[in-house]
Amino acid sequence: MNFLEERLKEYGTQIDQALISYLPGEDCLQKSVMQAMKYSAMAGGKRIRPVLTMEFCRQCGGEAEDALPFACAVEMIHSYSLIHDDLPCMDDDDMRRGKPSCHVQFGEAMALLAGDGLLTLAFGTLAKADAKKVGSEQIARAVGVLAEAAGVCGMIGGQVIDLESEGQPVDLDHIRQMHALKTGALIKASTQLGVLAGRGSEDQLALAQQYAEKIGLAFQIVDDMLDVTSSPEVLGKPVGSDRENEKTTFVTLLGLSEAQAEVKRLSSQAKGILDAWGTSDRFLYEVTDMLANRQK
Amino acid sequence: MNFLEERLKEYGTQIDQALISYLPGEDCLQKSVMQAMKYSAMAGGKRIRPVLTMEFCRQCGGEAEDALPFACAVEMIHSYSLIHDDLPCMDDDDMRRGKPSCHVQFGEAMALLAGDGLLTLAFGTLAKADAKKVGSEQIARAVGVLAEAAGVCGMIGGQVIDLESEGQPVDLDHIRQMHALKTGALIKASTQLGVLAGRGSEDQLALAQQYAEKIGLAFQIVDDMLDVTSSPEVLGKPVGSDRENEKTTFVTLLGLSEAQAEVKRLSSQAKGILDAWGTSDRFLYEVTDMLANRQK
Repeated sequence: MNFLEERLKEYGTQIDQALISYLPGEDCLQKSVMQAMKYSAMAGGKRIRPVLTMEFCRQCGGEAEDALPFACAVEMIHSYSLIHDDLPCMDDDDMRRGKPSCHVQFGEAMALLAGDGLLTLAFGTLAKADAKKVGSEQIARAVGVLAEAAGVCGMIGGQVIDLESEGQPVDLDHIRQMHALKTGALIKASTQLGVLAGRGSEDQLALAQQYAEKIGLAFQIVDDMLDVTSSPEVLGKPVGSDRENEKTTFVTLLGLSEAQAEVKRLSSQAKGILDAWGTSDRFLYEVTDMLANRQK
Repeated sequence: MNFLEERLKEYGTQIDQALISYLPGEDCLQKSVMQAMKYSAMAGGKRIRPVLTMEFCRQCGGEAEDALPFACAVEMIHSYSLIHDDLPCMDDDDMRRGKPSCHVQFGEAMALLAGDGLLTLAFGTLAKADAKKVGSEQIARAVGVLAEAAGVCGMIGGQVIDLESEGQPVDLDHIRQMHALKTGALIKASTQLGVLAGRGSEDQLALAQQYAEKIGLAFQIVDDMLDVTSSPEVLGKPVGSDRENEKTTFVTLLGLSEAQAEVKRLSSQAKGILDAWGTSDRFLYEVTDMLANRQK
């Protein structure tokens, strides 16, 4: 295992253990909803967002572990959004991460409530951060940042724009704006929450945001590319759904090779921002490359 | 207008104005979800929960207005829960407060997202409380209290128990436990958040909780009674749905007159707790009576 893989594995283990500890116990009448939450939250995603939170905390001089409540909160938001996105009234996707979607496994009502439960728990988990280390002021600020990023002026807003764009002719600017909200906002919040947990400076907060904007957009362009170039076996979810739904994507607007070039440009800009930050090691550089070159 | 009506009107106006100010502007691509949120949040409910928050803040010596972010957060949680409860995969109710339900008006996907949006905004609104007056520590604590009350060990949990009890033989204890979560938890949080906003003592926090437990249960028993005794014109939603869904309720278990007697007992106990508190005027006593005697 190389440096990148080792650090990712270490963070991943800490995140999984913390997530399990924050998920509610199942010793109650309503245990089925707890099971549905655990099914989705522990389905083994890439954990990119919480890794960013922990690493940005560390890069501000904090202990990465102190950021675990913030990191898990971001992952819970991501996880709830996938459950609700997969519902029949939304994207109606039966598979997620190679397994039946939450509503296929537990029924629609339970999936709806499990999503609501994870969204609510995300904020409860923020509040569990150690006030003595992180500071109550930083916790309250983190609540505001996460609510803004996850809300209708952030992730949910992007989902709405996406829904209403289907079958409509849209341009590159529209697509950029949609993705800045739909996926970008939460990635941005992941880095910001890390800076808050590490009691970083306002300058660091600004750089973290700029870095996240670049990798967030690159992340989405790669997503659009994989929908064309990958297979369901590798991705763990159906491919070709964009074409099927007649969706305008970075790939349909730019073509595959220009999309690839754009990802390279964005990654290079992201690394420039890391240069300006002056990070203590190469980890975030390697994460940047990994996100640009990912195959799933 | 008598004392009770005047104070309720005053609070109601403040709450409505604050809610409008916290709801996101509609000058963006995703304005349809903002419209759906506003449609449901401003549909004119009784505003009991935010009134309790403001009044308990006042009873702790705070300015009632300082509790407005907390009060509105509780109302947003209530409002989102109604939107999601009405969805086809849940109770499938077409009418709410005398108007088409959110999903009938805006479609299922938009109603789902509007509910998610209000739930998220609730926490964002908590974070908007004036840290100089209320204190960052109290804000962080309020986030924890509201997340617990609204989550799977609170309101959502009660909803799950309710869903899974349909058509099952259940006893009074089961029903009490379900309602303690489904409606009780959020009413309890309403009073707790008021005490937190007013920087009340731990003793006051405990008394506020006990009071809320009594009126919360009474509130639910009255709900069950109205489903039998009221009309859709008065209630603004269908009646007789409990019988239709073969639901076990306080009325089916106790009968109407014993249910009525239980409401009286609970109200009297609630007033005993107010005696112990030593409230500064009769407002909460009159609220207690109003909730017990309400016709809708």
